[in-house]
Amino acid sequence: MGIPIAEFQARIVREKRERKREKVRNFIEWFNKIIMDAELYEYRYPVKGAYIWRPYGLQIRRRVENIIRQLHDETGHGEVLFPVFIPLEYFSKESEHIRGFEEEVFWVSKGGKDPERLILRPTSETAMMPMFKLWIKDHTDLPLKVYQITSVFRAETKSTHPMIRLREISMFKEAHTAHVDKDDAEKTVKEAMEIYKKIYDYLSIPYLISRRPEWDKFAGAVYTIAFDTLMPDGKTIQIGTVHYLGTNFSKVFEVTYLDKDGTTKYAHTTSYGISERVIASMLAIHGDDNGLLLPPNVAPIQVVIVPIPQEGYDTKGEAAKVEAELKEDGIRALADLRDDKTPGWKFNDWEMRGVPIRVEIGPRDMDKKTVIVARRDTGEKYEVPRQDVVNFLRKLMVEIGDNMRKEAWSNLRKSIHYVSSMQEALNNLGTGIIMIPWSGDEQCGIKIQEQLDASILGIPIDEEPTEQIGGEKDLACPEKNANYWVRVSRRY
Amino acid sequence: MGIPIAEFQARIVREKRERKREKVRNFIEWFNKIIMDAELYEYRYPVKGAYIWRPYGLQIRRRVENIIRQLHDETGHGEVLFPVFIPLEYFSKESEHIRGFEEEVFWVSKGGKDPERLILRPTSETAMMPMFKLWIKDHTDLPLKVYQITSVFRAETKSTHPMIRLREISMFKEAHTAHVDKDDAEKTVKEAMEIYKKIYDYLSIPYLISRRPEWDKFAGAVYTIAFDTLMPDGKTIQIGTVHYLGTNFSKVFEVTYLDKDGTTKYAHTTSYGISERVIASMLAIHGDDNGLLLPPNVAPIQVVIVPIPQEGYDTKGEAAKVEAELKEDGIRALADLRDDKTPGWKFNDWEMRGVPIRVEIGPRDMDKKTVIVARRDTGEKYEVPRQDVVNFLRKLMVEIGDNMRKEAWSNLRKSIHYVSSMQEALNNLGTGIIMIPWSGDEQCGIKIQEQLDASILGIPIDEEPTEQIGGEKDLACPEKNANYWVRVSRRY
Repeated sequence: MGIPIAEFQARIVREKRERKREKVRNFIEWFNKIIMDAELYEYRYPVKGAYIWRPYGLQIRRRVENIIRQLHDETGHGEVLFPVFIPLEYFSKESEHIRGFEEEVFWVSKGGKDPERLILRPTSETAMMPMFKLWIKDHTDLPLKVYQITSVFRAETKSTHPMIRLREISMFKEAHTAHVDKDDAEKTVKEAMEIYKKIYDYLSIPYLISRRPEWDKFAGAVYTIAFDTLMPDGKTIQIGTVHYLGTNFSKVFEVTYLDKDGTTKYAHTTSYGISERVIASMLAIHGDDNGLLLPPNVAPIQVVIVPIPQEGYDTKGEAAKVEAELKEDGIRALADLRDDKTPGWKFNDWEMRGVPIRVEIGPRDMDKKTVIVARRDTGEKYEVPRQDVVNFLRKLMVEIGDNMRKEAWSNLRKSIHYVSSMQEALNNLGTGIIMIPWSGDEQCGIKIQEQLDASILGIPIDEEPTEQIGGEKDLACPEKNANYWVRVSRRY
Repeated sequence: MGIPIAEFQARIVREKRERKREKVRNFIEWFNKIIMDAELYEYRYPVKGAYIWRPYGLQIRRRVENIIRQLHDETGHGEVLFPVFIPLEYFSKESEHIRGFEEEVFWVSKGGKDPERLILRPTSETAMMPMFKLWIKDHTDLPLKVYQITSVFRAETKSTHPMIRLREISMFKEAHTAHVDKDDAEKTVKEAMEIYKKIYDYLSIPYLISRRPEWDKFAGAVYTIAFDTLMPDGKTIQIGTVHYLGTNFSKVFEVTYLDKDGTTKYAHTTSYGISERVIASMLAIHGDDNGLLLPPNVAPIQVVIVPIPQEGYDTKGEAAKVEAELKEDGIRALADLRDDKTPGWKFNDWEMRGVPIRVEIGPRDMDKKTVIVARRDTGEKYEVPRQDVVNFLRKLMVEIGDNMRKEAWSNLRKSIHYVSSMQEALNNLGTGIIMIPWSGDEQCGIKIQEQLDASILGIPIDEEPTEQIGGEKDLACPEKNANYWVRVSRRY
């Protein structure tokens, strides 16, 4: 694990234990229970697909939002806030766009009577474009890059799931950009992908990047690049998308600019989005039978300090001192000094809530001027000299984040299977992602989906096509040669 | 002004000038123009009462939100996030509440067809109460104090104004609390008032605190305490309210707790709100004919550094160095190094955008190892030794915030007039708040409002009744003795 034990004279007092992940297999039940038990989220609100963030959950979410903001700000995106209402007239302008969304749009009217023709935004391209038209005059106004973190609304007809499939997506980060040409727009597509990778890395979430097939791209896009990750039950979940929109929106909204050569041209636009699904994935991927495990980067409490009471030893006083030292150093620490709970009860409770590190202070530790440090990720325990505790924990937090990322990536990679028959595909579908030989033909792709009752995620764009495809036939259309290994999975 | 000139050897090189506030008198026109010119806000969005925050404005707003969060967090409020949808069935439970809001509620339906009975929250008491019922079991769960910063929706029939009268109030901070009894609830009413005072102080906004008359209290409240401030055109604007709700909501939503004595009792609840109107007021109160003046606490750029170009002097390099030093010290500084703008153009542009301090670096300053510091609030200029610049500016920022607060309070106090006839009342109404002798009788109060075409703000609760009321008669009902001086104004 690379903990520099020598440097800190920390002694391992208990070896790594295997994390039990049985309950995680019964995933949705486990997930719904744990977000309620940890008082992170509330799913009993009496409106379908609408839920509540409670303080512990919102503290995590605010940290995720902050890293999202930071990464967008430092790459020249300006944060804006647009209204939730879009006039139907604007929403309908781009014909593919309205076709893609019209079934799941909420309409708004005043007092239940005179209907104004307003909808609640399901996404904001058609709110932004009329303003881009006003803000962009000539090529010096480009690129224009803005983003917002807001609620969007989709009247999902499928069954809804807390934090995963929502009618009010309350943490939708959507970026919208305009450019002089395709080249410049595609530079931003790449930049967006880099931003998203950094967000997932920060949360120790592994991901696959695929180019979505034509029939599954964003309504109105030229193409869509999507990030998926794997849930513990073998289904994938889309956790981010980046769209190149070409001039599809700029043409209908007349978003033009005066170029250097004196001619008026249409801007090329992009949009890219990410939502609270990254938080749902983070909780799902790292949790185990004992509860949550939060990456130290976003844990509201990074270190909990539990005193072991003993006559004649002020372990509570010592715990409070350690808390103060850690806080002084900027570590989010809490000394749990409650008298009406046993240490064992506290251990379990904080494990369940996902606190990544526990410090135990007992009488023997006080005699020896040490503390015990327990890792939530591996279960390892260390004896650490009292004077080293701040530095040791600071290093351990990085180590835990790295280890969580490593473990999650390893699990994802193990769950990808190359198959060359329908039977083999069906056998492996329940456990993760399958790679299927595909001609690239749309009809054959749709057949693959139907025969497997699964979805084509798309052709990988995050790896070289190292696997030889030569000789394979399209799995649904054996008369055709396969040209790609395409990713397929069941999904949320 | 108390700038410790001796300490810094700073020499005043230009005296204070009077700030021109003529345009501010034509207030709404001035306001709408300046928020657009400063690229802070956009009012051309094609939906009535719905507007856009642009990056410069949102940076101010995020700082205001942060101080609001900090003050609520440190007084034990948990931040939550509730859905925007409220089932009509819940919204209608409290009869006064629904009567107060029903005319201005937006209804939502899916796809314009099968109407689900949902509304967009105009305020969240009726969303919170069903959850409070689930979360509160016994007296140890109380007090329960939560808040959220969200959008709320009111289908205003009056004319809307950018940032002032909105259909989507996008920065609504609403706190909701539950308590064992009236005493404990009223402690939180007082705490809320202290929180709000700190927010206004932070933004250098003066305020009056009044107990709203019965006919103007929050729909469903036992009583409402409101904060008002004065706009440059002599109208007041409500910038915060605190409501004691008694058991009005807890009874209809059955929010009960098991008390120590084993009996089940209704919780007493409160709610209190504040919105982007605090930002509108801050901009309105401190601005002048040259544009905005932002309090250093929330200014996205606190110090702009303008080099004065001159052959043989690297004033640009020096400006960049000063910028780096200030940033190093945590001051939000920007060196304006554009070559295609003159220093004079830059001075005007940054003044318009409200940057509170300008540093000028010219060839003579470089020879003398000094810089020129110009205050946006008083127009004073200082010559400051180069090595003192960071400390001088840090002190000056506090001084500017204090001076802005002092000036604004002095303006508010000058605008309050005690009157003892209707004619005198009418003569003074255009310039601010008038104090009117009132019996306290509701019918007489409503007559006062009608005769003056103005509103009773309420009885002061922020000052001792020092003015003798003895002998005065109710202005609208001369047969009655007056018992109070009541505040009256035209208002937004």
